Amino acid sequence: MKKLINAPDDVLTDALVGFAAAYPDLTVNLEDRYISRGPTAGKVGLVSGGGSGHEPLHGGFVGFGMLDAACPGEVFTSPVPDQLLAATKAVDGGAGVLHIVKNYTGDVLNFQMAAELAGDDGLQVESVLVNDDVAVENSTYTAGRRGTGGTVFVEKIVGAAAERGADLAACAAVGREVNDRSRSFGVALSTNVIPATGKPGFELGDTEIEIGVGIHGEPGRSRGQMTTAREIAGVALEAIHADMPLSGDLLVMVNGLGGTPLIELYVVYAAVAEFLESRGATITRNLVGNYITSLEMAGCSITVMRMTPELTELWDAPVQTPALRWGR
Amino acid sequence: MKKLINAPDDVLTDALVGFAAAYPDLTVNLEDRYISRGPTAGKVGLVSGGGSGHEPLHGGFVGFGMLDAACPGEVFTSPVPDQLLAATKAVDGGAGVLHIVKNYTGDVLNFQMAAELAGDDGLQVESVLVNDDVAVENSTYTAGRRGTGGTVFVEKIVGAAAERGADLAACAAVGREVNDRSRSFGVALSTNVIPATGKPGFELGDTEIEIGVGIHGEPGRSRGQMTTAREIAGVALEAIHADMPLSGDLLVMVNGLGGTPLIELYVVYAAVAEFLESRGATITRNLVGNYITSLEMAGCSITVMRMTPELTELWDAPVQTPALRWGR
Repeated sequence: MKKLINAPDDVLTDALVGFAAAYPDLTVNLEDRYISRGPTAGKVGLVSGGGSGHEPLHGGFVGFGMLDAACPGEVFTSPVPDQLLAATKAVDGGAGVLHIVKNYTGDVLNFQMAAELAGDDGLQVESVLVNDDVAVENSTYTAGRRGTGGTVFVEKIVGAAAERGADLAACAAVGREVNDRSRSFGVALSTNVIPATGKPGFELGDTEIEIGVGIHGEPGRSRGQMTTAREIAGVALEAIHADMPLSGDLLVMVNGLGGTPLIELYVVYAAVAEFLESRGATITRNLVGNYITSLEMAGCSITVMRMTPELTELWDAPVQTPALRWGR
Repeated sequence: MKKLINAPDDVLTDALVGFAAAYPDLTVNLEDRYISRGPTAGKVGLVSGGGSGHEPLHGGFVGFGMLDAACPGEVFTSPVPDQLLAATKAVDGGAGVLHIVKNYTGDVLNFQMAAELAGDDGLQVESVLVNDDVAVENSTYTAGRRGTGGTVFVEKIVGAAAERGADLAACAAVGREVNDRSRSFGVALSTNVIPATGKPGFELGDTEIEIGVGIHGEPGRSRGQMTTAREIAGVALEAIHADMPLSGDLLVMVNGLGGTPLIELYVVYAAVAEFLESRGATITRNLVGNYITSLEMAGCSITVMRMTPELTELWDAPVQTPALRWGR
């Protein structure tokens, strides 16, 4: 295992120390393990979290117009209830707190427990479950669909709504709407290596790809042979289209899984744009880059959301986080 | 070779088509092979370029407050004079054009030829040479030091100066000042694979790292054994410090080479901050992410610039490009 770390057990702490040094405008609580801003009085607080190894998700999305706090677990391990509770309390500005939860069994349970504990303390907590990955119905760590790229859209758009003063119920409603309108599909060209084990998460042959892979390296629909970017984009988009017809105005993210260079993501984006235009859909907004990764896994995921004028306006609203910034 | 491409010969074209689709506010000239905005009347035009495979450099830095045009060559291959000339003419707003050139023999020759041709056509062209990499004196493609991470700083800061109306001589002067104040050092944990050959650019053993590697995989100072992020950061910073004493206010970039996950770059940044603070220096600005890559190479480079209040102000000025954005 060759990784830029000091020791496998120190990865998360060292990364948080580095994050704190790099972004002094944010608060990093090393004891309770969360990254936060605020609280902002009168604003709904937004908290997300999950296992580490998907950076910039979630810590890189804390800031104006997006999250109020992010709770990183150990690599590919859910954050614990106490940690989530501490972050929830820290960002409560009196208007309640919304939990944005990717659909993995551990995350769901621990966020639920934190919400109950927060409720016992008199806080109002709602939650939005993200389950946008159409690849498989159940998976290694999931009952039901996995939550992947759509999380970025939910965090951005609910973030804008909260910043504009939407109340807790309205924030939850817009979060669910974004999730309902978003679908993802990922393909891995290589495996990843979890620092704690030092071993590949799974094995892939020299010419093999995992079609429909999860962001922890969970199995997808099938093991395929390496092929062109155009064909890979087609497989992903057909899978999405079969689940949610692709038409009208779309927000599209071509996301690198961590070990794929940006030049390849541009090549994939060209194929995605060609595919969607040939079917009469219009990409009105896009992201191309590394937003939700799987350590050093090579490959990409494609996330598509069907836009409305209201959601477009919220997407365009100013955001100022380490990993997503515009308008200020 | 597993890459998200359609065919090795089509990588650059396909990537440019994808880039054009992703960033409709920029112009991509597929025939002459450059990405541009403008021209902006009365403003000095800034043109950079170089081999592809280092994305987001340079195309990702075209936009308000940074470059006016970027000319991508084939992967790890210099752009040609005609291409540079076309871009130079396209962005001339009547105040002359500044070429920002990384110090590689092919780039230097081809930019020089383009500048002469532009001069024949009555254009005023100046150039700034970037040679910030302290690792080695000469290298595979270089007489003198290589140009690496400092290029990002030159493009950002000269971009701000040009946007404020600095004339051609002043833009060149500030570019040279930034280069003079910047130093870089890179370390590779894995090799890269050039699409055209399908073969690793060099070989690294399971526990080896290349210390002082170039952004094309050129040999560095030595082949070492894998060690901690803290030690790797120390080696890089000691090399820089031996060449330019590290004190006062610093701009620091911890840059991923393409195949290293962001969580590891945070770990490196923690080590960099610890090292510099222990020596009494202050990091006043930073970048942590993938800004000048080497295809899918794992590893990182560290670039340090000694700041002045004037340069800090130019650094902080608004910028709106695909890969660097703040203030608008």
